[in-house]
Amino acid sequence: MWISRVIRLDPRPRGFHLVTREIVEALPELRDVSAGLLHLPLLHTSASLTLNENASPDVRRDFETWFNAVVPESFGGWTHTFEGPDDMPAHVKASLLGPSLTLPVRDGQLALGTWQGIYLCEHRDHGGARTLTLTLFGE
Amino acid sequence: MWISRVIRLDPRPRGFHLVTREIVEALPELRDVSAGLLHLPLLHTSASLTLNENASPDVRRDFETWFNAVVPESFGGWTHTFEGPDDMPAHVKASLLGPSLTLPVRDGQLALGTWQGIYLCEHRDHGGARTLTLTLFGE
Amino acid sequence: MWISRVIRLDPRPRGFHLVTREIVEALPELRDVSAGLLHLPLLHTSASLTLNENASPDVRRDFETWFNAVVPESFGGWTHTFEGPDDMPAHVKASLLGPSLTLPVRDGQLALGTWQGIYLCEHRDHGGARTLTLTLFGE
Repeated sequence: MWISRVIRLDPRPRGFHLVTREIVEALPELRDVSAGLLHLPLLHTSASLTLNENASPDVRRDFETWFNAVVPESFGGWTHTFEGPDDMPAHVKASLLGPSLTLPVRDGQLALGTWQGIYLCEHRDHGGARTLTLTLFGE
Repeated sequence: MWISRVIRLDPRPRGFHLVTREIVEALPELRDVSAGLLHLPLLHTSASLTLNENASPDVRRDFETWFNAVVPESFGGWTHTFEGPDDMPAHVKASLLGPSLTLPVRDGQLALGTWQGIYLCEHRDHGGARTLTLTLFGE
Repeated sequence: MWISRVIRLDPRPRGFHLVTREIVEALPELRDVSAGLLHLPLLHTSASLTLNENASPDVRRDFETWFNAVVPESFGGWTHTFEGPDDMPAHVKASLLGPSLTLPVRDGQLALGTWQGIYLCEHRDHGGARTLTLTLFGE
């Protein structure tokens, strides 16, 4: 069983956002998979996906604070600056966190840990909608 | 061929630990796969998995030193502090390194490089046992 | 359909290099896959793979500058130094960026975003040729 589908996530402000529900709702075929995997790749180079704590909004805010401190717009080494001060930090953050997730599927649902949620990490000030090519496969 | 299995890794102290053997021993069916993949996701948000050098313990110690320096408990930006000073740094480290690995399987074994080993990266002071949902698939 | 193949990437100087074309040309069977995935793992612990902007060489140069600033050879905490000053930083950079990519394949080609290219991130001064075990699977 192979399902391949392009979906768009609504535009979000710069920061870290929980999108687990939005992704699950785009994929009703999840419930037909007893054992499989879901591959979620963003088709962008200035946003990323990660798994992290799905409860406290302050965790997501602290992610934004830490990444801005360590990959700052004011870093003196940037030469690629013509797309705006938020562009080059966004590229580096995107590769630190990674462009895709692969998630286990069991008994018709994503087999995430109790505290795990899918974060869309929007690193641009005005990133717009973000596109993913979902691949669901298994039996 | 799809095999899905939940395993637990024994509790470890904070730091970086080689767990290749523990994972291979939990999966005797590896030897029946001529070409395939093994997907290894942790179900936690304060520990991570990575591949790195499997020989010198000082490499793993230097990982711990560097990550503590760059994601310090003393960072002034943390607001999510009620779960202890090691909690928020653990979340950030977990996403920097990533929650899962996908590894190639060839001729009945993990096809890792000569120097590659699987690290369990335990970012909490008292993280306890860590759970994985292994998926092995191939032919 | 399962194809497993070992390929070697030509030696590159330390830095970030676009290798999309080299990988696609090593895998003519891509054109026979209507929906599938390509798994690309490096068998090394001092180089890495990531997806990022495929147009401006200055983006790749800024990656090198930033990573050298944040994971410097001069970091006072390194104890694993007998393989040279570029060795331990290379191990940490390799795990920050990750050892492998999983990419979607649709309609006979890699389904990357318009601006996405595959970077070989060479973290050693003289890393030599780098080996990958490609796995292509799908239908």
